[in-house]
Amino acid sequence: MIVALSGGVGGAKLALGLSRVMPPEQLLVVCNTGDDFEHLGLCISPDLDTVMYTLAGLANPEVGWGRRDETWSFMETLAEIGGETWFRLGDRDVAVHVERTRRLRDGQSLSSVTAYLCAKLGVAPRVLPMSDDPVRTRVRTDAGWLDFQDYFVRLRCEPVTRELAFHGAESAHPQPAFIAALGDPGLQAVVICPSNPFISIEPILAVPGVREALVACSAPVIAVSPIIAGRAIKGPTAKMMTELGMDPSAGVVADRYSDFLDGYVIDHADMAEVVSIDAKVTLAQTLMTTLEDREALARTVLDAAAVLRRRR
Amino acid sequence: MIVALSGGVGGAKLALGLSRVMPPEQLLVVCNTGDDFEHLGLCISPDLDTVMYTLAGLANPEVGWGRRDETWSFMETLAEIGGETWFRLGDRDVAVHVERTRRLRDGQSLSSVTAYLCAKLGVAPRVLPMSDDPVRTRVRTDAGWLDFQDYFVRLRCEPVTRELAFHGAESAHPQPAFIAALGDPGLQAVVICPSNPFISIEPILAVPGVREALVACSAPVIAVSPIIAGRAIKGPTAKMMTELGMDPSAGVVADRYSDFLDGYVIDHADMAEVVSIDAKVTLAQTLMTTLEDREALARTVLDAAAVLRRRR
Repeated sequence: MIVALSGGVGGAKLALGLSRVMPPEQLLVVCNTGDDFEHLGLCISPDLDTVMYTLAGLANPEVGWGRRDETWSFMETLAEIGGETWFRLGDRDVAVHVERTRRLRDGQSLSSVTAYLCAKLGVAPRVLPMSDDPVRTRVRTDAGWLDFQDYFVRLRCEPVTRELAFHGAESAHPQPAFIAALGDPGLQAVVICPSNPFISIEPILAVPGVREALVACSAPVIAVSPIIAGRAIKGPTAKMMTELGMDPSAGVVADRYSDFLDGYVIDHADMAEVVSIDAKVTLAQTLMTTLEDREALARTVLDAAAVLRRRR
Repeated sequence: MIVALSGGVGGAKLALGLSRVMPPEQLLVVCNTGDDFEHLGLCISPDLDTVMYTLAGLANPEVGWGRRDETWSFMETLAEIGGETWFRLGDRDVAVHVERTRRLRDGQSLSSVTAYLCAKLGVAPRVLPMSDDPVRTRVRTDAGWLDFQDYFVRLRCEPVTRELAFHGAESAHPQPAFIAALGDPGLQAVVICPSNPFISIEPILAVPGVREALVACSAPVIAVSPIIAGRAIKGPTAKMMTELGMDPSAGVVADRYSDFLDGYVIDHADMAEVVSIDAKVTLAQTLMTTLEDREALARTVLDAAAVLRRRR
């Protein structure tokens, strides 16, 4: 079994690659839920959905979020009647949020609703929220604390980030199947996808017990850098690092994981950083443009993990 | 001012006719909310919406409910993920339900949400729910008591109706502007639209104070028969009458309103019933196929009301 920790778009790409180069039912993708929010009365889980749609082959290939073959009548009408339209919800996407919300209000857990939706959409890997308890990422900016989606979507990551907080994390319980997988002697590797460390991976690590389980994990933990040559492939990773007083580099991301990181896959462009990284580094093409790129990077990660396992 | 009491499709047709042959801002359409229900976590008000869409020129002309230029991606996806699809919700329609639900959960009254939506959609007449308190029509059938939409949509009115009940009516308050209008000395007429008496008009009459206000009303109360030659133009009116042990006739509908009815518009086809009806009868073409039919019937109703006013 392989456990992959993922945020949205970048993580979903590698998760898709993994699901295509290994038996998909042996892949467990654990998603960040710090981005989740309630909007228009609907419970929305952006990272879970991006991973689910990507693994189901339903993702919009152009923007990386939402669904392909989407229609926008809901949003058009919402604009007509003066509703909030800054968070774009396609008609097909809304159906998923309505059904999820209905099931959650009915008392089902987020993990059971996710499993249900994944089964219906034909997703072969297991997809789990990091926790069934709500954790909400907040961003302190010069304009004060902002809810994550306010910062991320409404304000397009423009405010300067000063601090991050994961509300609810301290009292949240990690999803039991996630912790069980980390302690499973059959676990082959934990893959930290090339997601933003601050807003995608660290909310997962903030759930009590997760970091400890990664440190104690018998399988190698291997991350893929979300930074290539000082820039993020997508999203505000590099911008946030600079604002938080860090050098936006692959090595600085690795430092965030130093207590449990065994292997690190960085781009050829960052070869010069190898010496400063306290983990077994593998050089690869980490930019995933095509499906073949996703599969190739996934193979590289699994091969690197196999090497690390043999060393133990 | 004219007050019109309306259910869904048939009532909306006459309300549209009225709005086109009189200053529309002087028309107050009071809608049945006994059909309202919560479905998929959304607050749905079918009669209010049919009236609102019809008056806004947005109604689907083919089926009489829902919106024209509608798309169905939401419903398609809901079917894919195993959601409940027996109540058809178009993508544009869903936006209205989501926004209504959000506002109601925010503490706004149904009448204020309705006024807001009508303003946004360009509806000139005032549209009011009969009450801001929930009233829920239930139907006793041979299979027991059914929620209204279960009976009406899911089971397509197939079960035999034995009894009707309007849950919550006894403790509901009529919408204050509705009662104020009935007592307004400037009121010119109350029009009871050709809606199903049992499931569209009687829920309105069941709200404490409404029937009394109609009896006490200084303006003439004039109804349009929903029955033509023993048949309902649309919906289960005639079938229900038979099942409830009544003769499905225009005259029997008038009997339901006998304590306050001053005038009654029936179809030429029902001329033979004139002698048995205890109200001033006007013969007309009551089948409204075209927009001109709606306007002509509206003029007939207003003229008949003017005659009744002169007699007082």
